[in-house]
Amino acid sequence: MVEVRFLPADKTIRIQEGMSILQAAIAAEVRVESTCGGKGTCGKCKVRLQTGKIGNAEDLTPAEKKFLTPAEIESGWVLACQHILTEDTFVVLEEQKDAFDRKAGMRDSEKAWEHAPAIRKVALALDPPTVEEQTADWERLSRALPVDHVAFSRLVAASLPQKLRQGKFKVTAVLDGAKLLAVEPGDTISRSFGLAIDIGTTTVVAYLVDLNRGTVIGSGAVTNPQNVFGADVISRITYAAGGPEKLRELQAKVVGGINGVITQLTEKHGVGFDEIYQAVVVGNTTMSHLFLGIDPTFLAPAPFIPVFQQEVEIESRELGLKILPTAVVTVLPNVAGYVGSDTVGVMLAGNADRLPGLNLMVDIGTNGEIILAGKGSILTCSTAAGPAFEGAEIKHGMRAAEGAIERVRIASDVFVEVIGGTKARGICGSGLIDAMAEMVRAGVVETSGRLVTKEAQLEKLPPLVQKRLRGGTEFVLVWAEDSATGGDIVISQKDVRELQLAKGAIMAGIRILLREAGAEAGDIDKVLLAGAFGNYIGKESALGIGLLPSVPLERIAAIGNAAGDGAKIALLSLPEKERAFRLARQAKHIELSTDPDFQEEFINALSF
Amino acid sequence: MVEVRFLPADKTIRIQEGMSILQAAIAAEVRVESTCGGKGTCGKCKVRLQTGKIGNAEDLTPAEKKFLTPAEIESGWVLACQHILTEDTFVVLEEQKDAFDRKAGMRDSEKAWEHAPAIRKVALALDPPTVEEQTADWERLSRALPVDHVAFSRLVAASLPQKLRQGKFKVTAVLDGAKLLAVEPGDTISRSFGLAIDIGTTTVVAYLVDLNRGTVIGSGAVTNPQNVFGADVISRITYAAGGPEKLRELQAKVVGGINGVITQLTEKHGVGFDEIYQAVVVGNTTMSHLFLGIDPTFLAPAPFIPVFQQEVEIESRELGLKILPTAVVTVLPNVAGYVGSDTVGVMLAGNADRLPGLNLMVDIGTNGEIILAGKGSILTCSTAAGPAFEGAEIKHGMRAAEGAIERVRIASDVFVEVIGGTKARGICGSGLIDAMAEMVRAGVVETSGRLVTKEAQLEKLPPLVQKRLRGGTEFVLVWAEDSATGGDIVISQKDVRELQLAKGAIMAGIRILLREAGAEAGDIDKVLLAGAFGNYIGKESALGIGLLPSVPLERIAAIGNAAGDGAKIALLSLPEKERAFRLARQAKHIELSTDPDFQEEFINALSF
Repeated sequence: MVEVRFLPADKTIRIQEGMSILQAAIAAEVRVESTCGGKGTCGKCKVRLQTGKIGNAEDLTPAEKKFLTPAEIESGWVLACQHILTEDTFVVLEEQKDAFDRKAGMRDSEKAWEHAPAIRKVALALDPPTVEEQTADWERLSRALPVDHVAFSRLVAASLPQKLRQGKFKVTAVLDGAKLLAVEPGDTISRSFGLAIDIGTTTVVAYLVDLNRGTVIGSGAVTNPQNVFGADVISRITYAAGGPEKLRELQAKVVGGINGVITQLTEKHGVGFDEIYQAVVVGNTTMSHLFLGIDPTFLAPAPFIPVFQQEVEIESRELGLKILPTAVVTVLPNVAGYVGSDTVGVMLAGNADRLPGLNLMVDIGTNGEIILAGKGSILTCSTAAGPAFEGAEIKHGMRAAEGAIERVRIASDVFVEVIGGTKARGICGSGLIDAMAEMVRAGVVETSGRLVTKEAQLEKLPPLVQKRLRGGTEFVLVWAEDSATGGDIVISQKDVRELQLAKGAIMAGIRILLREAGAEAGDIDKVLLAGAFGNYIGKESALGIGLLPSVPLERIAAIGNAAGDGAKIALLSLPEKERAFRLARQAKHIELSTDPDFQEEFINALSF
Repeated sequence: MVEVRFLPADKTIRIQEGMSILQAAIAAEVRVESTCGGKGTCGKCKVRLQTGKIGNAEDLTPAEKKFLTPAEIESGWVLACQHILTEDTFVVLEEQKDAFDRKAGMRDSEKAWEHAPAIRKVALALDPPTVEEQTADWERLSRALPVDHVAFSRLVAASLPQKLRQGKFKVTAVLDGAKLLAVEPGDTISRSFGLAIDIGTTTVVAYLVDLNRGTVIGSGAVTNPQNVFGADVISRITYAAGGPEKLRELQAKVVGGINGVITQLTEKHGVGFDEIYQAVVVGNTTMSHLFLGIDPTFLAPAPFIPVFQQEVEIESRELGLKILPTAVVTVLPNVAGYVGSDTVGVMLAGNADRLPGLNLMVDIGTNGEIILAGKGSILTCSTAAGPAFEGAEIKHGMRAAEGAIERVRIASDVFVEVIGGTKARGICGSGLIDAMAEMVRAGVVETSGRLVTKEAQLEKLPPLVQKRLRGGTEFVLVWAEDSATGGDIVISQKDVRELQLAKGAIMAGIRILLREAGAEAGDIDKVLLAGAFGNYIGKESALGIGLLPSVPLERIAAIGNAAGDGAKIALLSLPEKERAFRLARQAKHIELSTDPDFQEEFINALSF
């Protein structure tokens, strides 16, 4: 184990040697920009080391050599996804300048729910048996419990006589509703832990939660070990369809990954496996199926049928999860084949059923899940957004750090603001979208998305702006002589197309949901951006390119890692967990692939 | 596998090669007398072969050479426990002459209960999903089921998509109440099986039951493989107390034994493991604990505390039982540390809660369990009866076959009736007790149980009877010149003592229960004899020696293997199973070891 400290967030995490800084950052809930998922192809996850192996060019990977300048290497810059941790390390992240740089997590001040965990511990002092009073151990114990009928548990009963006698008939019973999970000698009421798990296709995050105090005491992340069978959901499904053995293999992989994180967390925080009494899991529908070892084959082809929609509650030992064997693992329900329990987590944390008015929630990764809640209904859909939105396919895209263009204005010429006031090195998410909006407004691109080439259109542009348009292939934001890279910083025609396709899909989904609700964009009271996306992309920019429906700026807010928050909330509050079950049932899923209006809306939404 | 046919019962069973005739007889529910439990030390299990290896003295074991005469060997006699089956065999049993020779089993004419198995199969024709109707497989299925809320089963769900599509959405659901056990492609309603299991300390018997027809279609038995750890309950408990590993070992042994029988039965009757949807298990309290892998340590020392009393319902896969993995295995509840679910089975089959009047049920093996039911209560106790009752320790004891003294009268001399009208070879159970009763009546033994030696007492006996008393050590029933063995056939002083101790314990137990019920022996309306004992021992004889309370003869009846019958009934009728649960709760256990009156009653009951 090595210790990694992140500045300026000042978060520290202990993690296994051999993990990357990026994995450590995810585990520590510190945001590091990355759009290629750790493959070393986007070059966006630059971070600076303060201690640890610094500036040794021999240790650098080819990816680092490609994306880092000699000066950067000298100063300790590395790529977070490439730098493997072998010792305790201080990592400095450039200050994020995005308007929505908001960390995921639960703040007490934001709690709108009751702290009422399902787990209850009861300390008991029983009368020992005598020949006159020969009641069996199980019956003796269960009569003393404050529940009506305790279901018999073979596993608890197996060791019950020893536990009772070790504790001289003073014991603590661990209850999950009317289910007796464990009997511990003595009084152990002060210790009670749970686990919230967010299973992503790429990354699995687990949060160790103190159920008594209602606090997250640690978190850890690991790359989903199923990734050896393919990076995306479809390749996992294809592998699982190979038969029960393959399915079991996928199940064992993800559980093995989670167990590794549990081992780290329990060691770090001095918690026993057997003191983790409950777990709540969220993930997309495919991840939920694979976690449970349930055949996802028919999720891939139309009509995209999952095996189950409802919540699943199951003993941890059946899954091989390394917590108390009798602990109940709850997988929150899913809504449809491509709207999973992670989206239900967003609904729960985002209060989809409680917010006044009409609320749009958008959670965008490789897929975009959209929720429109209000007017008595919750509508959902999912769209294939593609990686473009995360900047993976953008020529000069970079994270919002020093040297990134963050604002663009087009008047007599192009004027940019660069983070840190230095020369520009590239363009960050908000800058990109800002640039795109200005290009549209100024007439540098047609509403169709084509960079203008016709003489008549070009003539309308100021001469200095005209000069920046290079034969309809790219638009120069910063000339080489003004850039930190020594080359032009441009927006290519392909960059524009990538953004168009992604925003078109999202916007079409939103429009279909609005149509279904009988509402218009102007009726939306709040737009909540969940997940990494919400933290990365500026709201003005998003409005500017028509990614989000046109609403006043103050109605848009980022809500952090809402899926994971949903899992934590369900863990800490039984009424909230039950609310999550209801939310999934309330939600009405709109299948876009066969919606008669989708193609039309998509094509319409492509335009600026 | 070899086929064994028993005559005159004309029962046939297929059993693994290497099993003994005795094991085959138990499996076929054919009674063969045996008091040493198959050790070859009692010599009572003589049977005659009609086919198979006959009369080859080289094949005989030392035990057979000891107990069989050359003429018997010539005629094909063997000891059932010693003769190992290597080929198909016809076995002839001497006709039993006991008044209570009644076979265990269920006769339809005796059924007082409803055929209403918990297992229900429902054939369904579901609408296949479409893009317009994307309901998940589980929800699609469960909406079609005739139960309100079907609990989610990961195991059923795991293969559900394949099963549905194999059957083109025409499937049969297997339900146990609201629990979905399996989904089978097509219509399989006509096939539904269950298993009743009677776990004895010595022998485990399993019955394969057709749940649709309510019939036992086959049965099999195996020596309880735990016997390698000791023949009795206490040695098993001692082994289990060695730690969780030992406990698991014992659990695996008995399950392995049962699985062997299941394999035989399913092969023989063309039934799939996965078509056995339910099992009901009875056994003494220690056997129930070990079957479930629950620590029985504290059953051995006072205050004899079991871990559980209630019924246990558990999925078969958790025990490793080789039937449908999701099948529910019900272990009927026990009453106390030494009154187990086998006794509850007796209560159920014997209708302890339904018979009018006051009813005494006695099930005697190594332990004697006694039930006194009526007047609104069910009382139970257990006593250590010892093997004496089964004749194991009786000098010239033999089974009730040709040559056995079955009746004894003492007048001017001793007159005996011998089965088959031949010369006497020994004395059978009923003859022994008959002899004892006559000896008491005639004054050959004092009421204290001592053979008379005093001149004054001897003088009162007829001269020919006097002559048979040899110095207070034995009483000659048949002189050497009249016997088939060429030696005197006697009742020894030790024989008398063995019987006294055994019947004293039973009778003391009965008296304590009568006291508890505020009743007297004369109030008893029915005496029901369960198990092997009931079939072996004559009722007149039992009354004669004061083993049973003095009631008119017609009130006594044998009810066969009532424990096993109870398991079968619970399997075939859910209301009856639930009645068994209630019976165990209704029963009040009287602990004899600390009962203030027990020593007194025991000593009183020793006398004749």
